[in-house]
Amino acid sequence: MVRKNKKITAAILIIGNEILSGRTKDQNVSYLATWLNENLGIKIGEVRVVPDIEKKIIANVLSLGKMYDYVLTTGGIGPTHDDITSQSISKAFKKKYIYNKEAFNILRKYYGNKNFNDPRKKMAKMPEGSKLIYNPSSAAPGFMIKNVICLPGVPSILKSMLSNLGIYLKPGLKIFSRTIILQTIESNIASLLEKNQLKYKKFVEIGSYPFFKLGKVGVSVVLRSENKKKLQSCHKEIIKMLKNKNINFFEGV
Amino acid sequence: MVRKNKKITAAILIIGNEILSGRTKDQNVSYLATWLNENLGIKIGEVRVVPDIEKKIIANVLSLGKMYDYVLTTGGIGPTHDDITSQSISKAFKKKYIYNKEAFNILRKYYGNKNFNDPRKKMAKMPEGSKLIYNPSSAAPGFMIKNVICLPGVPSILKSMLSNLGIYLKPGLKIFSRTIILQTIESNIASLLEKNQLKYKKFVEIGSYPFFKLGKVGVSVVLRSENKKKLQSCHKEIIKMLKNKNINFFEGV
Repeated sequence: MVRKNKKITAAILIIGNEILSGRTKDQNVSYLATWLNENLGIKIGEVRVVPDIEKKIIANVLSLGKMYDYVLTTGGIGPTHDDITSQSISKAFKKKYIYNKEAFNILRKYYGNKNFNDPRKKMAKMPEGSKLIYNPSSAAPGFMIKNVICLPGVPSILKSMLSNLGIYLKPGLKIFSRTIILQTIESNIASLLEKNQLKYKKFVEIGSYPFFKLGKVGVSVVLRSENKKKLQSCHKEIIKMLKNKNINFFEGV
Repeated sequence: MVRKNKKITAAILIIGNEILSGRTKDQNVSYLATWLNENLGIKIGEVRVVPDIEKKIIANVLSLGKMYDYVLTTGGIGPTHDDITSQSISKAFKKKYIYNKEAFNILRKYYGNKNFNDPRKKMAKMPEGSKLIYNPSSAAPGFMIKNVICLPGVPSILKSMLSNLGIYLKPGLKIFSRTIILQTIESNIASLLEKNQLKYKKFVEIGSYPFFKLGKVGVSVVLRSENKKKLQSCHKEIIKMLKNKNINFFEGV
């Protein structure tokens, strides 16, 4: 078994004009980031959204691939002309863009010989040497080549594939978190949090997020750390300070 | 009046650990992209999400600022220790990070002398020479320095500020769009769309987006163009081809 003693990071590269135009709201980042952390201890370090333009995809895949352990792309692996992720990744890594035999057979079986037309065959084309990520929803697999993982953009299909992706990725340190919900405004707790953040600088990341719900104002304070003990003592100290200051709070999820 | 005869592009830089951790779903990209296009003819070319890390903010603001006419940042201009956008942008442009007198007065008036504590004063600090973007919801202004515009992360506050941002931005060519919703699957229309895309390559961007709703399968075909006439003729030809192929469709929004 791999020892989980290292930070593993990933970037998400969303490929899709429909996100940039505002037409479609991304639904994958939040799910992917949570899933990767909870199941594999992989932390998302950056997200980018780029249009369906080959040059842009290549440049971003290569630069993100150098900065993070993994790059997960979403979108652009379907049957239509605007699905150009597989070709672009092939070019980025100077690999042949060819039919993957196993993917071809999976898709032929799924559609049947008669209905296995060219657009459907296209979904079996990918960079030479790719490993398949099986798709239990709609057959067309994703793939992994080097440290790049290509997934579809449709959220329900993407979700169904994640357990088949897990096997390829090195697990890292899980990030633990605690949330405290305060019935106050940020400026009342800013110096308290800053003091605490300075003390736990190396170990705990403290985030402060104001909210406005149903006419009520509040702040979610989120503590995140790979070190459970440090997280607990940081949490304990903040709670103590809140009690001393008579600030109402409750524990969040 | 400025003539709207040029493409104007922008990037969105989301600054916030809470998006990368998966805890919070971004709600600003879709709204901002739609608003900028509809009101000012500005097209979003790229989106990035980076953590609350000064080095990352500086590097991304500078690189995006070279690639696009404008960079809009969201998040990190509040009163707490993890709000570091204003400092980071000051460093990026080698500007002093100082109190903006007008912002200071706005905030002092809003909170009253007695309650105008240091965390609140912090919200008046920004790069020297910034222009203010007024905030009718919660007083603390955003700002613009060079081609970078800094907005808050809280969606309701951001939305309320956009009309005050509009005055600083050069308008560009509005992008028109038409949507056709098809009761079919992508692979049935892939070659038809490809043929049409080739013909209108320089003028119309054709996107194909499968959907799965309430057990029904379909495809949204979205045509986008700055040229209304070309858009209309491309749209007409696709409709004709769909009728010839007996594919059911209806017009979407």
